[in-house]
Amino acid sequence: MPRVHIHPVHVEFGDCDPAQIAYFPNFFRWYDAASRHFFESCGVPPWRELERSVGIIGTPVVEANSTFVRPTSYGDSVEVHTWVDEWREKSFVMKYRLMRGGVLLAEGRDVRIFAIRHPDDPSRIKAVPVPEDIRRLCE
Amino acid sequence: MPRVHIHPVHVEFGDCDPAQIAYFPNFFRWYDAASRHFFESCGVPPWRELERSVGIIGTPVVEANSTFVRPTSYGDSVEVHTWVDEWREKSFVMKYRLMRGGVLLAEGRDVRIFAIRHPDDPSRIKAVPVPEDIRRLCE
Amino acid sequence: MPRVHIHPVHVEFGDCDPAQIAYFPNFFRWYDAASRHFFESCGVPPWRELERSVGIIGTPVVEANSTFVRPTSYGDSVEVHTWVDEWREKSFVMKYRLMRGGVLLAEGRDVRIFAIRHPDDPSRIKAVPVPEDIRRLCE
Amino acid sequence: MPRVHIHPVHVEFGDCDPAQIAYFPNFFRWYDAASRHFFESCGVPPWRELERSVGIIGTPVVEANSTFVRPTSYGDSVEVHTWVDEWREKSFVMKYRLMRGGVLLAEGRDVRIFAIRHPDDPSRIKAVPVPEDIRRLCE
Repeated sequence: MPRVHIHPVHVEFGDCDPAQIAYFPNFFRWYDAASRHFFESCGVPPWRELERSVGIIGTPVVEANSTFVRPTSYGDSVEVHTWVDEWREKSFVMKYRLMRGGVLLAEGRDVRIFAIRHPDDPSRIKAVPVPEDIRRLCE
Repeated sequence: MPRVHIHPVHVEFGDCDPAQIAYFPNFFRWYDAASRHFFESCGVPPWRELERSVGIIGTPVVEANSTFVRPTSYGDSVEVHTWVDEWREKSFVMKYRLMRGGVLLAEGRDVRIFAIRHPDDPSRIKAVPVPEDIRRLCE
Repeated sequence: MPRVHIHPVHVEFGDCDPAQIAYFPNFFRWYDAASRHFFESCGVPPWRELERSVGIIGTPVVEANSTFVRPTSYGDSVEVHTWVDEWREKSFVMKYRLMRGGVLLAEGRDVRIFAIRHPDDPSRIKAVPVPEDIRRLCE
Repeated sequence: MPRVHIHPVHVEFGDCDPAQIAYFPNFFRWYDAASRHFFESCGVPPWRELERSVGIIGTPVVEANSTFVRPTSYGDSVEVHTWVDEWREKSFVMKYRLMRGGVLLAEGRDVRIFAIRHPDDPSRIKAVPVPEDIRRLCE
């Protein structure tokens, strides 16, 4: 069983669109926040510290998906349940379930890399192998 | 050949994250803006008018995905190339290619419905068949 | 002494900009969320219910200010302390103090109205006198 | 007469809130984008280049305010008219007028500094005197 982190989210007025429901790109913001909180809960230092120590600037997303099952709106308290579904050599897969009480609102999945700045061009980024020590903290 | 709409985007400082690159949920904002501009360019009235006339509140996304091929940052002028890839009975599929000059930065795809408010519960939404007149405008 | 509401905020990676600090328009998002939570904590129904019952669509901001004293970044847990500083006939003034522990990060102030849709033009909004029952709930 | 830059903005569905109007923190995003485009139009290099050459990470806002005169909604094409209203020794004042055709929608003003990372603590920032060469480019 993978380690699961639960990240609470308050859906705000400003997260909602003229259809009165949470605007779907915000679900990806919530998944992304949940992903960082997952690493934080595992004891991984903030990216800004890792950038200084080992050059890792974060875990950029190379692919992101979500299905949207039921809408949510401001005033709702929801939770993102998050875990690493698969560790690969140079990437990993995270999954997300957005829940309101026991009701599933949305399911997400993304593929992420650990990235450093490209040595030849700081405007580009470059994947590095998944650091063994970080992986161990998260299992 | 489907009708393609090209939507220009200026990547702004506030669209970028501490890794100095555009934050990925913003790609979905850009795809979504491109989708609305696609309909606007086809002559479809704003959702707020359709809500008053036929009850349609917009085209909520039921599934979204994107791959992120190359990063972009503030100062970049990019374009979203958008088209309807498939019309189904109660949904449709849009595709997006985010380009900087001739370079592909990201590819998106989403599945959308035409929605009205649920007659029994205004906090929920309900798919209606793709309106024939809207589809004709967009082909 | 006015009633003060304390609204907790987790500063996320996606709230921060390439300078590695929270992007200042997000402070206004947090103030606005704190404002709505203030009303919720006072027992005022959600705007979507008030829209149906008395036509009030919310408390649009007619003026907003903030000073930014110290930056904050992702991983910080902060709090917005919020109160109504002044009730006027057709508007009211809210104040906000963004705190990290005992340290002041920013101070905000906005002027808001209670608004209904304009009877002649639904794309415009119109101030109504501050509802006496809402004001009583909030004092 | 100060140099004025005009920055076009398309108001998008995702910029609007459940009251069907543009969510006010987005006005500050637009002002901020207009500010950067102002500097770009004057020939000032991107902050990411200045950070590498002289350590300047941008022009953080130390105070921001706006009045909101008329709402705007998705589908609107608006413009931000921007200029430097005052140069001080260690800060400067920018003004913004958000226009739809000849109609004023909002007026903004902010106070900004040129900032470097604090030499003793990279999580803090520090104002430097307004660089003479940048000021000359902008007058």
